[in-house]
Amino acid sequence: MAKITSVSPLAPEKFPDLPVIDGVRFATAAAGVKYQDRTDVMLATLAPGSVVAGAFTRSATRSAPVLDCQAKLGKVSDEGAAILVNSGNANAFTGKSGTTSVEVITASVAQECGVPQDRVFTSSTGVIGEPLPHDRIVAALHTLAHDSDAGGIAAAAKAIMTTDTFPKGAAAQVNVDGKTVNIAGIAKGSGMIAPDMATMLVYIFTDAKIGQDALQSIVSKHNEVTFNSITVDSDTSTSDSLIVAATGESGVAVDGHAGFSDALHGLMRDLAHQVVKDGEGATKFVEVQITGAASDRDAKTHAMAIANSPLIKTAIAGEDPNWGRVVMAIGKSGAQADRDLLSIRFGDVEVAKDGWRSEAYSEEAAAAHMKGQNIVIAVDLGLGGGHATVWTCDLTHGYIAINADYRS
Amino acid sequence: MAKITSVSPLAPEKFPDLPVIDGVRFATAAAGVKYQDRTDVMLATLAPGSVVAGAFTRSATRSAPVLDCQAKLGKVSDEGAAILVNSGNANAFTGKSGTTSVEVITASVAQECGVPQDRVFTSSTGVIGEPLPHDRIVAALHTLAHDSDAGGIAAAAKAIMTTDTFPKGAAAQVNVDGKTVNIAGIAKGSGMIAPDMATMLVYIFTDAKIGQDALQSIVSKHNEVTFNSITVDSDTSTSDSLIVAATGESGVAVDGHAGFSDALHGLMRDLAHQVVKDGEGATKFVEVQITGAASDRDAKTHAMAIANSPLIKTAIAGEDPNWGRVVMAIGKSGAQADRDLLSIRFGDVEVAKDGWRSEAYSEEAAAAHMKGQNIVIAVDLGLGGGHATVWTCDLTHGYIAINADYRS
Repeated sequence: MAKITSVSPLAPEKFPDLPVIDGVRFATAAAGVKYQDRTDVMLATLAPGSVVAGAFTRSATRSAPVLDCQAKLGKVSDEGAAILVNSGNANAFTGKSGTTSVEVITASVAQECGVPQDRVFTSSTGVIGEPLPHDRIVAALHTLAHDSDAGGIAAAAKAIMTTDTFPKGAAAQVNVDGKTVNIAGIAKGSGMIAPDMATMLVYIFTDAKIGQDALQSIVSKHNEVTFNSITVDSDTSTSDSLIVAATGESGVAVDGHAGFSDALHGLMRDLAHQVVKDGEGATKFVEVQITGAASDRDAKTHAMAIANSPLIKTAIAGEDPNWGRVVMAIGKSGAQADRDLLSIRFGDVEVAKDGWRSEAYSEEAAAAHMKGQNIVIAVDLGLGGGHATVWTCDLTHGYIAINADYRS
Repeated sequence: MAKITSVSPLAPEKFPDLPVIDGVRFATAAAGVKYQDRTDVMLATLAPGSVVAGAFTRSATRSAPVLDCQAKLGKVSDEGAAILVNSGNANAFTGKSGTTSVEVITASVAQECGVPQDRVFTSSTGVIGEPLPHDRIVAALHTLAHDSDAGGIAAAAKAIMTTDTFPKGAAAQVNVDGKTVNIAGIAKGSGMIAPDMATMLVYIFTDAKIGQDALQSIVSKHNEVTFNSITVDSDTSTSDSLIVAATGESGVAVDGHAGFSDALHGLMRDLAHQVVKDGEGATKFVEVQITGAASDRDAKTHAMAIANSPLIKTAIAGEDPNWGRVVMAIGKSGAQADRDLLSIRFGDVEVAKDGWRSEAYSEEAAAAHMKGQNIVIAVDLGLGGGHATVWTCDLTHGYIAINADYRS
């Protein structure tokens, strides 16, 4: 792995104070899966009756842990549950040995934690195609299971990092009829980030009480406009996993509660933005807003064409308001567009209108916007009511330096 | 435009000797469209009765010259024809003024060259969204039309360059029943190269005698496996144009002649490879071979997913045989794949077989292949008979340097 010598310039000032979520305990260990001298395994145990929802990569070559989680998700149970994550090795494209590793690990976690094996969810992230040394993880499990801590979520956020330059966390509180519900989440991911998720692992915990179907429904809905609306390099991981667990320990029912849904949405968007802000080599955070498209789907297609365009991403890196490349990306996306109805803004600066450079266009004003750290590219298609917003980062020498030397 | 300080390391040793094509004359001028101190306009005039075929970008925001060419193509005429190309300005996303520029230029060319206006084809390449200073081109036309040269094709190849680091040309000779047919072509393009063509302009001339439908048919067919099978950065130009003109001056009929079709195919592939070899920042030429796919279409989808993956392209730049990223790209492509049937080769080195690292895998042998200048990534899906081959280059610091500063 290339040495990461500095924290992303877009990183938050500090890791947030995350609340304890009743019914969840964390433990981490340095199992030596690949890295030395750092934690690389995290275990989260969930109280009996916890509800678990999730979303996963749609890759046709998805990893053994992802396939295992997908098979287990959606079952309702009164028993406890556990989530085991390792960094350093993705256990992806590892043939039958990959399935064996998942089987061995989930059986051991089930035994050590006293939960059913079909309530043990695992994720692995790191290099693809190397057999997972699962014995090292199993050897750490006894201590992990018996040395857990309700306040250990910050350490968990660190243990799941790979090329991340900072740990990612977010929290929210919701007032429901005078009572408080807490939500806390952690994420990792900094490259291979694209729709259908990313090399992104996200774990969100809440003490809210909610049914499995209701939780899955809002998780799926919010996932589409958060983690499925970010991209760093258009590449999609074989391991992307989002798991949301509700322990119910607050005793506060939130089925159908808009405030809870909104708070979860906000927290998911916050974590998604943090992943982009740790995009490999990123120096600018970019929001692409599409309006006036023929459909929401067309809007997202246009937005992703812009967000994934190497020519646009390098122009942003160079602080160049090169809106011609935006026209190019709209044109190539395959979604409906009429050149002569397009209008384009960089921040508040209208650069193009009705298919040509705006009369009021000021190169200086557009260039000034590009010098900032937060860039907005807004395109109105002038065709209909379809809209979408996606987030990405610029493409810099840092991305090349990190990725041209990952395995060595 | 960023300064290009050196020629691509993948460039051919020298521009080839191109034969004179009877019935074609070339002229170039330094019209000052944008650049100073270099030629930026080229005129090719075609003898009466010349047949013209072509292929163009499918971008929804394609340029005014492209729309004009598409409207004119396919007409059969006994009169002469002309092709006028400028570099430095793409006349794309220039609203009504763009259409006016094409009208003014084609009318002037028609008058100066004595050909019908609907037989005048134009291309413009360079910056998008700036009005084309067509007066400068018109001012050069009289001299261009009256100072042309049958041997001027090498100069024409230089006049159409933008960020190209070398002019591109190729030639072929075909023996038809003891008589010789000549073909010569030139191209430009080095970035924004992707399927549905590229920022790529290609002009091919032959003295063969062939019907318009027959010529268009083989041009379309070969275009799919040559210029539509290369990619530098997945970005698609609004200006891509391929024009093939047959003057018939050799008197040799080639309708249905396999040798002519093969020779044209080879010449088109040669020019397509030269465009990739001038990919912005390229240091490696990469051939991606897909076999065993469920269909040819699936094969091309997989091939392009690999060829466009920033993670694979940076790994190649780093000479890293990171086949895990190839698995990732196959998985994300959307085309049919079965993880456990995949096999992958880097050059002659089998790296993965039946869904896992090959037993015979040698990291040293794979790494040795990656150190070469010509990289082959071959994937067999194990599903059916679908196959495709595409070509690309690596993604390096040079690409970032060139594109983060294009307009300034």
